Amino acid sequence: MGSQWGNNIKLSIFGESHGEGIGIVIDGLTPGMDLDWDYINFQMARRVPGKNKFSTARKESDRVEILSGILNNKTTGAPLCAFIKNSDKKSKDYDMLQSLMRPGHSDYPANRKYKGYNDVRGGGHFSGRLTASLVFAGSLARQILDKKGIKIVGRIKSIGNIVDVDIENDLDILNCIKNIDFPAITKEKEMQTLIEKVRLDRDSVGGVIEVVALGVKAGLGNPFFDSLESTISHMIFSVPGVKGIEFGKGFEISSMLGSESNDEYYFSENEIKTYTNNNGGILGGISNGMPIVVKVAIKPTPSIGKVQKTVNITTSKNSEVEITGRHDPCIVPRAVVVIESVMALAILDQMIGGSYE
Amino acid sequence: MGSQWGNNIKLSIFGESHGEGIGIVIDGLTPGMDLDWDYINFQMARRVPGKNKFSTARKESDRVEILSGILNNKTTGAPLCAFIKNSDKKSKDYDMLQSLMRPGHSDYPANRKYKGYNDVRGGGHFSGRLTASLVFAGSLARQILDKKGIKIVGRIKSIGNIVDVDIENDLDILNCIKNIDFPAITKEKEMQTLIEKVRLDRDSVGGVIEVVALGVKAGLGNPFFDSLESTISHMIFSVPGVKGIEFGKGFEISSMLGSESNDEYYFSENEIKTYTNNNGGILGGISNGMPIVVKVAIKPTPSIGKVQKTVNITTSKNSEVEITGRHDPCIVPRAVVVIESVMALAILDQMIGGSYE
Amino acid sequence: MGSQWGNNIKLSIFGESHGEGIGIVIDGLTPGMDLDWDYINFQMARRVPGKNKFSTARKESDRVEILSGILNNKTTGAPLCAFIKNSDKKSKDYDMLQSLMRPGHSDYPANRKYKGYNDVRGGGHFSGRLTASLVFAGSLARQILDKKGIKIVGRIKSIGNIVDVDIENDLDILNCIKNIDFPAITKEKEMQTLIEKVRLDRDSVGGVIEVVALGVKAGLGNPFFDSLESTISHMIFSVPGVKGIEFGKGFEISSMLGSESNDEYYFSENEIKTYTNNNGGILGGISNGMPIVVKVAIKPTPSIGKVQKTVNITTSKNSEVEITGRHDPCIVPRAVVVIESVMALAILDQMIGGSYE
Amino acid sequence: MGSQWGNNIKLSIFGESHGEGIGIVIDGLTPGMDLDWDYINFQMARRVPGKNKFSTARKESDRVEILSGILNNKTTGAPLCAFIKNSDKKSKDYDMLQSLMRPGHSDYPANRKYKGYNDVRGGGHFSGRLTASLVFAGSLARQILDKKGIKIVGRIKSIGNIVDVDIENDLDILNCIKNIDFPAITKEKEMQTLIEKVRLDRDSVGGVIEVVALGVKAGLGNPFFDSLESTISHMIFSVPGVKGIEFGKGFEISSMLGSESNDEYYFSENEIKTYTNNNGGILGGISNGMPIVVKVAIKPTPSIGKVQKTVNITTSKNSEVEITGRHDPCIVPRAVVVIESVMALAILDQMIGGSYE
Repeated sequence: MGSQWGNNIKLSIFGESHGEGIGIVIDGLTPGMDLDWDYINFQMARRVPGKNKFSTARKESDRVEILSGILNNKTTGAPLCAFIKNSDKKSKDYDMLQSLMRPGHSDYPANRKYKGYNDVRGGGHFSGRLTASLVFAGSLARQILDKKGIKIVGRIKSIGNIVDVDIENDLDILNCIKNIDFPAITKEKEMQTLIEKVRLDRDSVGGVIEVVALGVKAGLGNPFFDSLESTISHMIFSVPGVKGIEFGKGFEISSMLGSESNDEYYFSENEIKTYTNNNGGILGGISNGMPIVVKVAIKPTPSIGKVQKTVNITTSKNSEVEITGRHDPCIVPRAVVVIESVMALAILDQMIGGSYE
Repeated sequence: MGSQWGNNIKLSIFGESHGEGIGIVIDGLTPGMDLDWDYINFQMARRVPGKNKFSTARKESDRVEILSGILNNKTTGAPLCAFIKNSDKKSKDYDMLQSLMRPGHSDYPANRKYKGYNDVRGGGHFSGRLTASLVFAGSLARQILDKKGIKIVGRIKSIGNIVDVDIENDLDILNCIKNIDFPAITKEKEMQTLIEKVRLDRDSVGGVIEVVALGVKAGLGNPFFDSLESTISHMIFSVPGVKGIEFGKGFEISSMLGSESNDEYYFSENEIKTYTNNNGGILGGISNGMPIVVKVAIKPTPSIGKVQKTVNITTSKNSEVEITGRHDPCIVPRAVVVIESVMALAILDQMIGGSYE
Repeated sequence: MGSQWGNNIKLSIFGESHGEGIGIVIDGLTPGMDLDWDYINFQMARRVPGKNKFSTARKESDRVEILSGILNNKTTGAPLCAFIKNSDKKSKDYDMLQSLMRPGHSDYPANRKYKGYNDVRGGGHFSGRLTASLVFAGSLARQILDKKGIKIVGRIKSIGNIVDVDIENDLDILNCIKNIDFPAITKEKEMQTLIEKVRLDRDSVGGVIEVVALGVKAGLGNPFFDSLESTISHMIFSVPGVKGIEFGKGFEISSMLGSESNDEYYFSENEIKTYTNNNGGILGGISNGMPIVVKVAIKPTPSIGKVQKTVNITTSKNSEVEITGRHDPCIVPRAVVVIESVMALAILDQMIGGSYE
Repeated sequence: MGSQWGNNIKLSIFGESHGEGIGIVIDGLTPGMDLDWDYINFQMARRVPGKNKFSTARKESDRVEILSGILNNKTTGAPLCAFIKNSDKKSKDYDMLQSLMRPGHSDYPANRKYKGYNDVRGGGHFSGRLTASLVFAGSLARQILDKKGIKIVGRIKSIGNIVDVDIENDLDILNCIKNIDFPAITKEKEMQTLIEKVRLDRDSVGGVIEVVALGVKAGLGNPFFDSLESTISHMIFSVPGVKGIEFGKGFEISSMLGSESNDEYYFSENEIKTYTNNNGGILGGISNGMPIVVKVAIKPTPSIGKVQKTVNITTSKNSEVEITGRHDPCIVPRAVVVIESVMALAILDQMIGGSYE
């Protein structure tokens, strides 16, 4: 279960890394919306593997086929099914995975949940490849949000111990990023050097992504179970590899005094603003009109070339595993657009259901 | 909206701080379950305010009335409605809150969402008081989990800059806590001194809570939208004041190498374990049989006695606010049982729906 | 389970016939709505038992207490909990019900589902008394619909074999009903005579209720799983005693030719109408702007004074049961407002979620 | 919206009559289940058009491609996406449908809901062709139910005014049907003669389908919002063309006395049974162990060759329409397997979620 999501925009995700392909059904789209393929392809391309040495060598076009819900390139209002065929798959790399549980991967818990029937080739349904569907859906969500003046912008906050600068004013994020394929502000070089180093070491490294939603007015969200934080975090933790999330100052706020952390209000040309944004644009589960600021911890790619200790569940013996095949030494650069996409979907879902104008 | 939650255990929360009372409807409980009132009252008491100088002076018995779903102290299988009447309320303290938006509170976003019709007395529906209902529901969930060998244990990891020790082995958490009302391991004194200091300064301070679920077998959770992290974080971000969540090493994992962060497997008397638990017991959205470890950032209580800048939305002018009334200088000690409770509810919800045995 | 419902208006029902009381939590109400208590009490009174010899002798005030969600008689936007205390309960009448399964009642299936822990006094959670909560919620829904020009009107179409006239034009239903407590058009006397006869015979009788929604514009509903018929029927079959539902001509349409059953269109002063309304205002799961016409079959009250064969599940022997206590010989007159109410809730739920203007 | 359904088995339907194809995503299937293609193809074949003169001349193979969720012909536990490509489509037949609203079809309400952007070719997303996906999903559900001893059997109860016999004992339905493609008991000839007559008249005719679920034990279902009747009717009204539903005696029960309609209990070799089954196996929303008996009214195919009055929404003038193309004079024979399928899905969904053993 768990493949369906949403109260207002309904998503249904499916597919496997080395099966026929991957896809998503999206229901609840406004009829008559033009699909902006330049925009969609631009976003999809940000996630595509194999573009450079910082990502996996697997080359895929991620070409989206629309199976339903579109006529003359416009949404009809009926559920839209998007499908991406798998082309470049080398299943033989993965044959031993039925027995040897790769550390840090879903192999073992999935084996227990699905009693060994799960497709293990390339991670099967657990593959990061499925996030291509989320980027596609997110691209549609972002087109809709854009018309309401809402933009979602992400950046690489850190790779390993290389931490980029804080942004003085969250609004500036739009102007700081020069290389959209590696959206760091000042530490691009150092970060790339580190990634190259771990790649040569047959190792991997994680990082932190910061995503900002600009233009969300005050009043979006709910108290308690569908708080804006609940909805956004629910979606972001759907992305493989995420291990932490912070809104505003996040964990840092826990060591502040109330007199420091409270964001004081003032009128700025009839608009209510806060001097600081320690709460990341959300109070009581509801947006307060300031930028919504989220930080997301991404773990190192679990696939590494080094020998690792593990168990063989066929022989019930301790064993070792050495993962060959193609893998990103660092998933963070490609994950930025995925996090942006699911955040867009979460915000849109809250927006359609409530009284947001 | 947002007052209902759950796929298998269904919760419906309601109430206000200074209205008739607060309550919760719980559906999906096994019929024939005895209500262990000693246990329930013990857990409720951990959250009750007014017990000592570290918490608000408001005294409330939090006496739970059962309005439905129970016969001869056993669940009938019909929805159980629990109600807690409000007794000690001093509404006059809150009269200016229609106009002056308290920084760090839900006042302003709620005013925008509800167009000024929301009950502002004591925070109304947004009050932390509503978490009493969650503790009640959590107490029932924990009784059920207990029979499956699952225990949820929380502790104060930090208050302000006072950070307690890491636990070598997550299983040890059960034995480290001496004072359940202030569940620190080695830093109880220092933390209490800090809280007393900020109280005298009419200020407040936040902290971090660590919660561990022991005894969850491998195989609980889902890939993607209902990942175990998604479900747990959804519930935890329903609790007022939470600004961050981490599973396992959380943000720290982002600066590790894959060769460090991957939890290697081994057989321990026919059971599969990992040497480390950097992933906090969850891989691919599914439990791997290791303790589930969550850290939660709690912000400083926004109600402070100091003068703060704000806006008056009636006069549309910049203004100041000085909050009187009774408030916790630090909500963290009382919040531990709340976080434990919602985590229990999240785990139980996943457990009933799936194939978990 | 099954106590929660709704995509946009969320309902959570609870309570028992002979417990503390019954209630409902309603989330999703627009903030700032005045509660029209004259209207609410008028609708509640239509369902109240004990008013005359056609209904049970049990007298209850059905006085609604609002536990949350209201301030100064206006909705705040927070979940509204309404509670109705039980006052006049005679539990001793029901003592044998743990063993003797009353034919036509939920006793036996509930005993199996809840393994004997269900509250059997007065039907417990299965009691028709819980529909008072639905009438309350429906009264709020109808206030909202009324502002959009939508009215829900019901009538008694038949009692036993006494069948009232068809209405030439569905719009006329508003003008045909003289006695709102017994809303027949021409057969009030005959129907009441029949009910009195079966009462004296210690028997009961069923009937058919017709409900019409006037003023729903074209475009409400969905294809497939949330068709307008699916949503309405889901709610109407939630009402105890319902065994059939028809939209428009219903079963009669199955014996018509397409050339007879198709409702042909024409322009009437720029509005599109149909000459006939055999489809009851719904095509393809979506409203077509004509009145929505529903017929609902209500079974005879299963509680009858005659001796009936049954089983004793304690002794595992065949046995007999004679039901004493107070019961309606015919539930149909009081059920009209219940069916109207759930239909209002179903229509409102569809309306808020979609693009209906 | 409305394309997703289910609490435990999750369905997501998509597709159009004259687009790329139609499909369905099914989540919640037990891992390791073999797909019995003989059984699936047998059920799919029952719905396929073009087999004989009683159905449309459109010929389609309805060949199912599995896009995900299957490995070595076994379910993996991941969402299963089934897709059926459209092959034989003649779009030109449908060109005038943007303007001329066919009576009895979804054309006009869909045009209003989707603001003219809906795909009208062959009914687009509203086409009966989408029920092929439901039959596929139902075939999997029936394999699972079969292992629990549950069988779903349907038959044609009437076509037009030709009404077949009642079945003395619901259990006998398994033995009465000789021709699975036209499952009448005694009136096959007369019914076929009538269908042939209306076909020659360029007209159409409706009918009633009776479906029985055998082997469901007592205890399945819920009081109120997820009553077994609510869940089954929700699904059955998702099928295009359904205008009425009855459980047990249905509308007939409304003219019975309680002493006639109550199903009296007795022990039959330690099993509890009822002498009659007027309530169709459901009491209080929960199964009582007797066969679940449902009757479903199907309207005449709205596509008829006769000239009909309608409106032209482009010119805003009254007009006429004459439908050419291929259509079933009576959809009832092909609809039997569709109704069986959705009933299987509804029962399975209730079964997985609850405590049914």
